[in-house]
Amino acid sequence: MKKLTPKGMRDYYNEEAILREKIIDKIVKIYRKYGFKPLETPALEYLEILKAKSGEEIAGQIYKIENDDLGLRFDLTVPLARFASNIALPKPFKRYQIAKVWRKEEPQKGRLREFYQADADIIGSKSMRCEAELFALANDVLKSLGFSEHFFILNNRKILNSILERVGINEERSTILRFLDKIEKFGKEKVENEIEKIVGREKKEKLFEIIDLKGDNEEKILEIKKINEEGAKELEEILEYVKEYDEKINIKIDLSLVRGLDYYTGPIFEIKANKDIGSIGGGGRYDNLLEIYGERDFATGISLGIERIFFILSENLKEKTYTKVFVASLDNCYKEAIRIAHYLRKNNIEVETDLNERSLTKQFEYCDAMGIKYLIIVGKKEIEEKRYTLRDMEKREEKKLTLEEILRVIKDGS
Amino acid sequence: MKKLTPKGMRDYYNEEAILREKIIDKIVKIYRKYGFKPLETPALEYLEILKAKSGEEIAGQIYKIENDDLGLRFDLTVPLARFASNIALPKPFKRYQIAKVWRKEEPQKGRLREFYQADADIIGSKSMRCEAELFALANDVLKSLGFSEHFFILNNRKILNSILERVGINEERSTILRFLDKIEKFGKEKVENEIEKIVGREKKEKLFEIIDLKGDNEEKILEIKKINEEGAKELEEILEYVKEYDEKINIKIDLSLVRGLDYYTGPIFEIKANKDIGSIGGGGRYDNLLEIYGERDFATGISLGIERIFFILSENLKEKTYTKVFVASLDNCYKEAIRIAHYLRKNNIEVETDLNERSLTKQFEYCDAMGIKYLIIVGKKEIEEKRYTLRDMEKREEKKLTLEEILRVIKDGS
Repeated sequence: MKKLTPKGMRDYYNEEAILREKIIDKIVKIYRKYGFKPLETPALEYLEILKAKSGEEIAGQIYKIENDDLGLRFDLTVPLARFASNIALPKPFKRYQIAKVWRKEEPQKGRLREFYQADADIIGSKSMRCEAELFALANDVLKSLGFSEHFFILNNRKILNSILERVGINEERSTILRFLDKIEKFGKEKVENEIEKIVGREKKEKLFEIIDLKGDNEEKILEIKKINEEGAKELEEILEYVKEYDEKINIKIDLSLVRGLDYYTGPIFEIKANKDIGSIGGGGRYDNLLEIYGERDFATGISLGIERIFFILSENLKEKTYTKVFVASLDNCYKEAIRIAHYLRKNNIEVETDLNERSLTKQFEYCDAMGIKYLIIVGKKEIEEKRYTLRDMEKREEKKLTLEEILRVIKDGS
Repeated sequence: MKKLTPKGMRDYYNEEAILREKIIDKIVKIYRKYGFKPLETPALEYLEILKAKSGEEIAGQIYKIENDDLGLRFDLTVPLARFASNIALPKPFKRYQIAKVWRKEEPQKGRLREFYQADADIIGSKSMRCEAELFALANDVLKSLGFSEHFFILNNRKILNSILERVGINEERSTILRFLDKIEKFGKEKVENEIEKIVGREKKEKLFEIIDLKGDNEEKILEIKKINEEGAKELEEILEYVKEYDEKINIKIDLSLVRGLDYYTGPIFEIKANKDIGSIGGGGRYDNLLEIYGERDFATGISLGIERIFFILSENLKEKTYTKVFVASLDNCYKEAIRIAHYLRKNNIEVETDLNERSLTKQFEYCDAMGIKYLIIVGKKEIEEKRYTLRDMEKREEKKLTLEEILRVIKDGS
């Protein structure tokens, strides 16, 4: 019997699963705070829908169902576009979805074949306040998860298009964009060489002269205005609105940012965490995607990379278990143990009781192994006295207390 | 372009998705309170693992991946068995998993091809306190979701086997069990006829005489002891321990309960909500399942049917949106609106701002349509006065208040 999980997929148990639940919980709460509404869509979609705008690379990575016209979704944007373009909803339509997606590609560090995405999108508004909101939202999420050195890089497809036009790159545009997108992956030199092969040295040098633009954001915007005023103004607006949220949100305009997908039409961005793991989120405006599925509308969104965030935070797992208390039984006092556990649970405390007939030593060992902080000992003597031994497993201290006192210690730590 | 979700699958948006999130949230919190630990497994498993103990019916319902040896899981017990039987963990190993499963069967009311299961299982204990804990846990979940008339029906595979033996049904045992399992679906008369066809009238009558056993639980246990003492004692123990949690947990011994799956070995149970929709949960002991995947161990578990619970509760959707406040802008005061929204969000309030350039009337309409309770009006005059109009959309009342006062009203409703 094969005993493993499929290639590029894995199990997460207890500590790791707890961390994943916490990450998702924090993201959800902040998405809701910004007025996004939940959408749940099926894991399976019609292949026709999945392939409509996926591009060849991703289309080849779809897990297809045998003898059927279905496949597993590879992102959450396609289901959103299918849903939003076929229903009349009050606009703007702000939805979040945090769910798994599947891509049959080569697994790498922090990149699996099954992974979570955490998306927030706004359909039906052309305002750059949307983009500013997405930056503030991502910043709140990352701060709440303990990140402090994260920053955003920002570009605009309108500007990129004008740059290529100015350099004289027309037919080869999407090929060149795809190469530019690989700078982080393959290194700049290799990408430059590849681009030179296609458009020649002169155009390549002109291209990199522009996208290597130096200076702070203000200086860059002044330069970019000469290339594409509309695109520059959009970036300017975003920066202006973001300041209203938090002066400290760190955004760097970077003209070399492309983002892989074909469907972007305006501002695009990625989030870096100053770690050796690529971006931990990204997004952009895709005003033309919805019309493929039904009605055209404005659209912009963000996707946070839960797997990479998990990968970074799991280096330092903090919480070993949700369980706060273990009620150990002596002298077969199982019923009293149940009553005590039930009392504590009613007071919102996570409790386990002994379900095997184990010695006290074994019950201690179990608590230690699971990282449970408190252990209560219930035996005949304790029941008579109506005072139970509360052991702090970390401090290795014991006290005899009434049940009400035990509750107070566990709740307040005093 | 096909615009629908696949057959037997659907989208859930906003109100419906909120209800689903609430149901799952309540279940998770209670599972944790009872000391269960989270496990996350891939949606895809090797077909060999899926089919090992699924039985023919379910094996035929697996969504298989094209050109691969993978399929979508049809339950959460198989992944658990695969995981638990191949890893050394402190015992008992108590895990919860709330996730989607897929079965390609004919969709019915409250039964889809993609659905959530909410499982809690205990591996490594033979004590009937496990079963009692599962009953208490399910009772807590259902009470927290507003159910009050739910009850449990309880039987034991050991008793069922003895009954069939006593009646003289041996080779046809699993066929007869499968028919008994369909009483609710096809009606008793039809099932009786089918069974008579297989084992003859005499055996059929003897069988139904026993399983139709009347009386309260105590009376039934007395009778059952004559059939299978061990099985009867297990039921007796469960009832005894459950009382320690809550005298009011309503359990009825029902000898006609079978449960579909082959792998049960001891106590089995289902949860009824007094509604016309079948059981909303069930489970049982399956001490022999794990050895198929690796190491043998004791095991018992419960699965709550989120889709049926959702189906019942969605008749009365209470919460229209998570968003508490909408900040409406007048006179292009978008930046001030952002600052106010950010202030409220920092105070844990869910807020939307206007992302389109809409008239106040349109912003009112949006709030009404979305069911947002409060609307704040921010215009030039309000900014000068540092007092903003707070409109209660339900009461249709307006007040001019400072930001601190607004916060208090929203938080305390006063």
